[in-house]
Amino acid sequence: MQITLVDSANLFRLVHFFDILAAVVFAVSGALVASRKGMDVMGFMWFAVITGVGGGTVRDLILNVPVFWVQNPAHVSACLVTAVVMHFVAPLVESRYKTHLWFDAFGLALFCITGALKAAEFGLSPVPAALMGMVTGIGGGMIRDVLAGRVPAVFRGELYATPALAGAAIVVVGDRLGFPIGVVAVLGGGTCLVWRLLAMWRHWQAPMPTGSASV
Amino acid sequence: MQITLVDSANLFRLVHFFDILAAVVFAVSGALVASRKGMDVMGFMWFAVITGVGGGTVRDLILNVPVFWVQNPAHVSACLVTAVVMHFVAPLVESRYKTHLWFDAFGLALFCITGALKAAEFGLSPVPAALMGMVTGIGGGMIRDVLAGRVPAVFRGELYATPALAGAAIVVVGDRLGFPIGVVAVLGGGTCLVWRLLAMWRHWQAPMPTGSASV
Amino acid sequence: MQITLVDSANLFRLVHFFDILAAVVFAVSGALVASRKGMDVMGFMWFAVITGVGGGTVRDLILNVPVFWVQNPAHVSACLVTAVVMHFVAPLVESRYKTHLWFDAFGLALFCITGALKAAEFGLSPVPAALMGMVTGIGGGMIRDVLAGRVPAVFRGELYATPALAGAAIVVVGDRLGFPIGVVAVLGGGTCLVWRLLAMWRHWQAPMPTGSASV
Repeated sequence: MQITLVDSANLFRLVHFFDILAAVVFAVSGALVASRKGMDVMGFMWFAVITGVGGGTVRDLILNVPVFWVQNPAHVSACLVTAVVMHFVAPLVESRYKTHLWFDAFGLALFCITGALKAAEFGLSPVPAALMGMVTGIGGGMIRDVLAGRVPAVFRGELYATPALAGAAIVVVGDRLGFPIGVVAVLGGGTCLVWRLLAMWRHWQAPMPTGSASV
Repeated sequence: MQITLVDSANLFRLVHFFDILAAVVFAVSGALVASRKGMDVMGFMWFAVITGVGGGTVRDLILNVPVFWVQNPAHVSACLVTAVVMHFVAPLVESRYKTHLWFDAFGLALFCITGALKAAEFGLSPVPAALMGMVTGIGGGMIRDVLAGRVPAVFRGELYATPALAGAAIVVVGDRLGFPIGVVAVLGGGTCLVWRLLAMWRHWQAPMPTGSASV
Repeated sequence: MQITLVDSANLFRLVHFFDILAAVVFAVSGALVASRKGMDVMGFMWFAVITGVGGGTVRDLILNVPVFWVQNPAHVSACLVTAVVMHFVAPLVESRYKTHLWFDAFGLALFCITGALKAAEFGLSPVPAALMGMVTGIGGGMIRDVLAGRVPAVFRGELYATPALAGAAIVVVGDRLGFPIGVVAVLGGGTCLVWRLLAMWRHWQAPMPTGSASV
């Protein structure tokens, strides 16, 4: 029982660490969008925070629980620090769009793990828990894209939501089957990340309507 | 009392049936937007689900109750099936925009009924209940239009929100006065549908400012 | 104790009065956007209501409390009346954009006070309370701008969120230190208003990235 307690505390710390890491990674991706738009330091901060905590906010609103960053300012603080650092570093990054896509893919993989674990912990059955993992992963980027005035990546050609859903589903099922959380997280997150990167590299697309001639 | 129980169960089933029908009809309208934008099957699914359950989600968030599709996946499943079917059928529809508008009007009428009934059931007084019926009706389409990068229909010239509000108000008042739910639903939904279709056909508009020369 | 009771009731009435005044002022700013877009009377109503109650709605959703205008229709009614009045008056206003900016600044100052006070009353610690004041202030305008299809003012060059955050912080700190609420409100709101107006007048901006050449 002592061991379980330690494990559970470690698990909590691990999930919390990955969750803040995901927020930082998405904050980098948001700050790179602000950089491409030529914004000032406030714009960097806004895009970093909104992209970093947006997905979890949508998840918490839908689950009807208090929004996580109202209780604990760790995520928001981490995003703000990221924004200030990016403010000095971003203009040096040569191809900001490609870098942004890499960070976005990494954040997607991390958030679909932590979002699914949180929803499962909250008592949701597997299907909604996996959906909530996906929502946590894609929500922040969707809000970022709507505010930046472009069509969210989810609706553009490449595979985006499917890898997130697959990763979250692996985490939920593995957790149910009693696999160690570290193994499950690496498997789920790895699947999401590799799939997304391959889709970016090979321009994989979901099937198009047969008679489609886009109007 | 036995009869009341049966009636109440029947009423619940009727409202539930109309609610899923409304989600499917709006899902068709969302899928037609995805089709016009030349999206792949994932885009069809997203637009179908968001348009189908968006209005009810906004209603539940504002009422501070758990979002309906987290508990019961029936609506989301129905929207996903609709999206896959539309994926094969949509390119065959000749004037996708007109068809989309017809389905949108039908979904508007159905949702303003079920949204108003749910809000009344939840104990809201008549005015907010009617407003919630309108929000359920117009919310999904608004989110669909923002994500598709166009000005929501509500803000364009034609009458859109007024028929929804009128239909919802009829349902709430009729329900209060003790009329049978079927009669009330047909009256309220019919008013909304006919008014909206007439507005589309005759290009009815709300009054414009007198000195207006749009800048 | 009698005096405390009276004071508390007066305070409540004062906050309530400022809150409705802020909604009306933002409703004017929303109606002026509808006017510039050449919308009809329904468009005026929508933009007035969304701009007037949007910020408080976002605040209440994040705090996970019932949305204020569901319980008490005073704000929505005030916004609707404002919209109808503006419908006749707006086309007469010569420079609608400048007028809109003035009203927007005034609404920002009022809402950052009342939002911060409400959050503090609700038991939030100072930092989240100040953030909620800012969210109440900038939320309505952000939704207005997204729906009108333009980049929210927060992300454009000029200082917008910083004055709101400063005003809200002054209110929260002053309230904690036990200063009279009237003094605190004038100080906080005045700081926000003057800072914002100066930023508009002198085109003050937050620092830009050093190597920035906006792509």
